[in-house]
Amino acid sequence: MNYILKDENALYYECGFSCDNAVYLRFGSEAFFITDARYTNEALEYVKNAQVIEGDRRDLFVSVRETIANAKIQEIFFNPNEWSLQAYEKMRLGLEDITFTQMANLSMEKRIIKTAQEIEILDKAAYFGAKAFDRFAAFLAQEGRDLSEERLHFEAEFLLRDQGAFALSFSPIVALGKNAAKPHALPTSDCLVQNELVLFDAGIKYQRYCSDRTRTSQFTPEINFEKAQTFTNATQQKIYDTVRKAQEAGIKKAKAGIRAYEVDLACREVIDKAGYGAYFIHSTGHGVGLDIHELPVIGARSETLLQEGMVFTIEPGIYLGGEFGVRIEDTVVLSNNGAQILGSC
Amino acid sequence: MNYILKDENALYYECGFSCDNAVYLRFGSEAFFITDARYTNEALEYVKNAQVIEGDRRDLFVSVRETIANAKIQEIFFNPNEWSLQAYEKMRLGLEDITFTQMANLSMEKRIIKTAQEIEILDKAAYFGAKAFDRFAAFLAQEGRDLSEERLHFEAEFLLRDQGAFALSFSPIVALGKNAAKPHALPTSDCLVQNELVLFDAGIKYQRYCSDRTRTSQFTPEINFEKAQTFTNATQQKIYDTVRKAQEAGIKKAKAGIRAYEVDLACREVIDKAGYGAYFIHSTGHGVGLDIHELPVIGARSETLLQEGMVFTIEPGIYLGGEFGVRIEDTVVLSNNGAQILGSC
Repeated sequence: MNYILKDENALYYECGFSCDNAVYLRFGSEAFFITDARYTNEALEYVKNAQVIEGDRRDLFVSVRETIANAKIQEIFFNPNEWSLQAYEKMRLGLEDITFTQMANLSMEKRIIKTAQEIEILDKAAYFGAKAFDRFAAFLAQEGRDLSEERLHFEAEFLLRDQGAFALSFSPIVALGKNAAKPHALPTSDCLVQNELVLFDAGIKYQRYCSDRTRTSQFTPEINFEKAQTFTNATQQKIYDTVRKAQEAGIKKAKAGIRAYEVDLACREVIDKAGYGAYFIHSTGHGVGLDIHELPVIGARSETLLQEGMVFTIEPGIYLGGEFGVRIEDTVVLSNNGAQILGSC
Repeated sequence: MNYILKDENALYYECGFSCDNAVYLRFGSEAFFITDARYTNEALEYVKNAQVIEGDRRDLFVSVRETIANAKIQEIFFNPNEWSLQAYEKMRLGLEDITFTQMANLSMEKRIIKTAQEIEILDKAAYFGAKAFDRFAAFLAQEGRDLSEERLHFEAEFLLRDQGAFALSFSPIVALGKNAAKPHALPTSDCLVQNELVLFDAGIKYQRYCSDRTRTSQFTPEINFEKAQTFTNATQQKIYDTVRKAQEAGIKKAKAGIRAYEVDLACREVIDKAGYGAYFIHSTGHGVGLDIHELPVIGARSETLLQEGMVFTIEPGIYLGGEFGVRIEDTVVLSNNGAQILGSC
């Protein structure tokens, strides 16, 4: 199969290196990594199993078209999400005899099952991610009171990065009380008060692989992000216990050989039975790897056959608009023992 | 003129609001802001001079196509850089009778001359950006010794963000000694030692507008980021003085009525005369606004007529590979008095 890639994580997956101006070409067993003079030395040092070609910094496409033309191929696959219309037109200029075939999940499909080495890295990412949750809980306990969500968001990023050791998987969510009812809340000027509900969704990158985790707690001087949580408000406690049971049901259900929608259904059934089905307004989970959102989709319509080596989140939630929201999320890996939560090493 | 926009800064410029799932349509004097249920309330509150339409979160394009079809237009302009091939095809599905015309700098062209209000915001952004340089210099003086570039990069980001008050215009560059010879250096594990050359290129965002500034200094317990700098190494001093003269020549040259390449030439001549022409390996500057890189381009081939209200950087540099590099950068605005450095208020 012949294909062309542009996305940095897709490149890194193929050959162990990427930079912000590069294209990867594969023709059967032959591969090429085309970049410009700024990156040639590093590419020559790190790129595996591909020939490095130095192109023009201002227009890499001259070398790209030349390399495609020299390959004497009839068809090449590409991901139409990776290419702007402008880049797409440049890439195929003068190559009208070659069929450029769209394949939306070209790299993601290859990456859906993780190798033992990738799982080891993802496990460490999850471990370091969980450590950051502990640091943030300690910060909240000591200094969190009366700080705004905006400030808490800043402090969370600071603690997640651990003096620069880690990049972020995504901008973390620190949502208080009613703001936690929005699944993708942006930080506000609302301040943290005693007994406030705190939803924290965050992840770090370790060796380029992402962690992803969510906990919901109540703010007291003893706040922590364990799964056993006590809420002063009886409704919050009821909702929390329901989400926790839903997540446990999802983790128990997940194993190789079933379809992804069955995991979603296992979570949804618990929440439906408790009478909150209408308030679980998103899918149960998503794959995690070099990208924070990979395959498989764990949703009501996802027919994907789950297999050993898949890594994905299980993150049911209940969102009562204007009141509060609860979500509990872990990233799991499928082995012959079912689903294990990553990072618990 | 009819056009369609997708980029967040382009949207914000048109109507004062943006979010990560929205499209802006303009048909003559009529305008539409199409987003999904997550953002409708905020859009209704903040969007100016456009009708807000709530589309389907999973596929906004249904509403987009419907709105275009209802407008009974024959032609619509779009920026081929803003649209992936997939989004482009979705946008025009079933609208084969309408001509979609590419215009690469659709929004950027409109934004090339800043309003008085934008200049005021950019001036404040530059002011707060310069303050962050002072904070970073104070940090270096007190605690910088023996820290790695990676750690210094982390501390720089922390100080630039000022407890979450500001976002970053871009990931800052903190480059020591020979690493400063790479114009886009990534942080390494190299550590800061006495008398080391330090290049610092950084900017913050204030009310969504960017600042951009570079200083080069020598590390001592009295390090600062003023323009008057003393270097122990005579070659470094010579190069620094040359770059400083080049930048002054560029700032002096810049005024309404000349062509952009003349500013580039003014800087380049000083560096050429000193014998380092081959080591000034990039353009002299770029426009700054909502995006860190806007129009005009200040380069050797840029015929753009400079006009009052344009805001751009002047940032000559000399890079001696394997030894060190020097760059000095300010962001200026053109008024009837020539070019003023922003942030000196």
